[in-house]
Amino acid sequence: MKAKALTSKGTRDFNSAQIFKRDFIISCIKNSFNTFGFSPIETPSFENTETLLGKYGDEGDRLIFKILKSGNFKKNIDDSTLLSDNLSLISSNISDKALRYDLTIPFARYVVQNQNEINLPFKRYQIQLVWRADRPQNGRFREFLQCDADVIGSKSLLQEVDFIHLFSDVFKNLKIPNCKIRINHRKILIGLSQVLKLEEKLIELTVILDKTDKIGKDKVVIEVIKLGLDPSLQDVLVNYLSIDGDFINSISSLNNLFNTSTIGLEGVQDLNSIYKLIHLNNLGNTKLVLDTSLARGLSYYTGTIFEVNASEEVNIGSIAAGGRYDDLTSVFGLNDVSGIGVSFGLDRIYIVMETLNLFPKIDKTKVTVLFANTNKNHLNYLLNGVNHLRLHNINTDFYPDVVSLKKQLKYANNIAVPYVVIVDDNEVETSSYCLKKMNDGSQITLSIEEIVKILKK
Amino acid sequence: MKAKALTSKGTRDFNSAQIFKRDFIISCIKNSFNTFGFSPIETPSFENTETLLGKYGDEGDRLIFKILKSGNFKKNIDDSTLLSDNLSLISSNISDKALRYDLTIPFARYVVQNQNEINLPFKRYQIQLVWRADRPQNGRFREFLQCDADVIGSKSLLQEVDFIHLFSDVFKNLKIPNCKIRINHRKILIGLSQVLKLEEKLIELTVILDKTDKIGKDKVVIEVIKLGLDPSLQDVLVNYLSIDGDFINSISSLNNLFNTSTIGLEGVQDLNSIYKLIHLNNLGNTKLVLDTSLARGLSYYTGTIFEVNASEEVNIGSIAAGGRYDDLTSVFGLNDVSGIGVSFGLDRIYIVMETLNLFPKIDKTKVTVLFANTNKNHLNYLLNGVNHLRLHNINTDFYPDVVSLKKQLKYANNIAVPYVVIVDDNEVETSSYCLKKMNDGSQITLSIEEIVKILKK
Repeated sequence: MKAKALTSKGTRDFNSAQIFKRDFIISCIKNSFNTFGFSPIETPSFENTETLLGKYGDEGDRLIFKILKSGNFKKNIDDSTLLSDNLSLISSNISDKALRYDLTIPFARYVVQNQNEINLPFKRYQIQLVWRADRPQNGRFREFLQCDADVIGSKSLLQEVDFIHLFSDVFKNLKIPNCKIRINHRKILIGLSQVLKLEEKLIELTVILDKTDKIGKDKVVIEVIKLGLDPSLQDVLVNYLSIDGDFINSISSLNNLFNTSTIGLEGVQDLNSIYKLIHLNNLGNTKLVLDTSLARGLSYYTGTIFEVNASEEVNIGSIAAGGRYDDLTSVFGLNDVSGIGVSFGLDRIYIVMETLNLFPKIDKTKVTVLFANTNKNHLNYLLNGVNHLRLHNINTDFYPDVVSLKKQLKYANNIAVPYVVIVDDNEVETSSYCLKKMNDGSQITLSIEEIVKILKK
Repeated sequence: MKAKALTSKGTRDFNSAQIFKRDFIISCIKNSFNTFGFSPIETPSFENTETLLGKYGDEGDRLIFKILKSGNFKKNIDDSTLLSDNLSLISSNISDKALRYDLTIPFARYVVQNQNEINLPFKRYQIQLVWRADRPQNGRFREFLQCDADVIGSKSLLQEVDFIHLFSDVFKNLKIPNCKIRINHRKILIGLSQVLKLEEKLIELTVILDKTDKIGKDKVVIEVIKLGLDPSLQDVLVNYLSIDGDFINSISSLNNLFNTSTIGLEGVQDLNSIYKLIHLNNLGNTKLVLDTSLARGLSYYTGTIFEVNASEEVNIGSIAAGGRYDDLTSVFGLNDVSGIGVSFGLDRIYIVMETLNLFPKIDKTKVTVLFANTNKNHLNYLLNGVNHLRLHNINTDFYPDVVSLKKQLKYANNIAVPYVVIVDDNEVETSSYCLKKMNDGSQITLSIEEIVKILKK
């Protein structure tokens, strides 16, 4: 039976032109990471399942790809368990590894496993694939590249300040205009749950808040009432939701709102300190806004949280995000280490750059010249020319078969190679090569050394 | 319960120093691929299981990592199947995706799926991870990087010639001396099975031959006799095994041996044509030898096969390999397309380079300068300096907390940063910064512009 030649759902092939564009984005991001003092690490694509499970909430656990044990995967499971409906118990018996769901948890594992080799504060970047069993949709794939930078082992709010500058540096290098960095603080969300007397329903409350952009403030109020909000506190929620606009004013409104919540005030204080240290003129045309509805799904955040959106012309969701996570390494046995990090989503940035036509002119091929193959008697002469150019680091290919020159020139056009070299009796007799420029069809007969001079990178 | 902070068996973390070395190898290989006219593609990490199964022989199928279906993975399997011993039937029901085992089959799938977009002959390179459920050992991992170059859609033996030149180009760039390219031909192996009257046992025969290096020629003869070799043909096998040394002489011996095998003679003829077109002086100190015991495990090869070994000082197995595969795409419904390709194993090349001490001096960090943080009143002044250097693309970090200078200098030493900037009252008053060179401890007070000049890449 023939297999269908199809990529698996939610995954993609990339051709050269796409890779050149992706590499452009990656090299801009990497350049900013390096400039800001981050160093690269890499972790394996799969981890022991226990490393990943329970770190991303129930929804996250569900979306983690699990790998079947190799060999006899049924060895450690009894028949009654196998026939039961307890899917997570079954999978924990027949699978012991899982694909990376993000880069943060593997990083935390890395820090703990390699704690004797690293120096805190430890600044690392990591540009690797992650996998999620999500339903694919526009800009959301089952395999995608994350570009993460994190600092672990520093509680200083200077880190938050630096990440805000990093966001703007990346988007300045990519020339993506009018990005908006939305910032909030998990302690502000906890503070809200306290002043609304909904501490027990913090997660449900933040899930509703996170939908403000989609469903509107009125519906948020209705849903929070359904959640059990005391009608006498409805005004407090409405006040919270009306906080908008100027950063300084928002800080002041929040301070008033949280006069009974110490933890809420701590969050406001953090954001205020961060804001004061930002060099606003360094942010270029990236804007920083306090967005009290921002919640971030991942359960490990404990402090400042960020999300970055491109301008509203491109409706693609966040293109970068991050936050502070206190004590994430404690799940692996290393306590009292605070971390903070951000992640850039390559695929969405790509869509933004395509939509806004921001890619610079990128060649469709890196092949500079193709030697046409028109006479089998001249094969060695042709290969000498090919070798000569390659020795000068010029990207050189040859057509492998003696077919009509017309067919070979058509091939050269199709692969977008800018030059073709043609060899015939005349060239061999005069120790020369005929160089054809494909964009205007012009031809000139030259020595191989002269061709090197023209084509040299 | 705390999870143990441990990478999964057979997988590895990489720190920055290791990544810089790996990147050195990758960029040399990539440079050769580009010079030889290959263009990059990428394929997803996992494929539909049917794309991979049955392409690598039984052993290969066993070593493919299968991914559990997401959601209710038991939905399409009945209880009796689930309880049966038919592991492959069960796994084909509860798993529909599998991790890439090599880059060749996904490439064949890519060619068929994207056949309307590509031009034949299609030359691509692909540098991506592959996964095998092998037992880890020295130089063998469960996750490793392959660097592949293939041409599909050309039967020309010029491709074989070019790949031999490519091998030598890569190892010349990496400065790995005395590599040995071993070449053989599947038709020679078939020819041998014919003259030994063991056509029915071709696979078993080649498995035995492949062990010649390990077990010696005498034991090969004993094992082939066990396989059913007619004693009267023992001399033919002994003659075959004694073929060694000079390429031209080997060709001539094989021609004599195969006077009754047309297919064997075809293989010899191919190797002879290839040899005549090689520019031996281009091979540098890489040697090309005809090795009649070379078999290559993967079942899809049909023509020339290659393996490259480093010098015998490093006993690590092959560091690159490849071969021609006729009609591989036909399993996906595209017939009559011949391909040929080679694969470089990054991890083994890394071990060779380490063992022979071939890596050039590679910096331990790319961070150029660390600003010490000694006075909270000067924080803004410090950040101004940091921003200024970063705007000039100088990789700059700062210490986030005000702690003793001694501690900060120790940190700077540990992360191997070559310069530290120190700011105190004196510097702020004179609008300057104190630059300390870490290797000799010298200090000099300069304007930020003067520091830019010194540190500029």
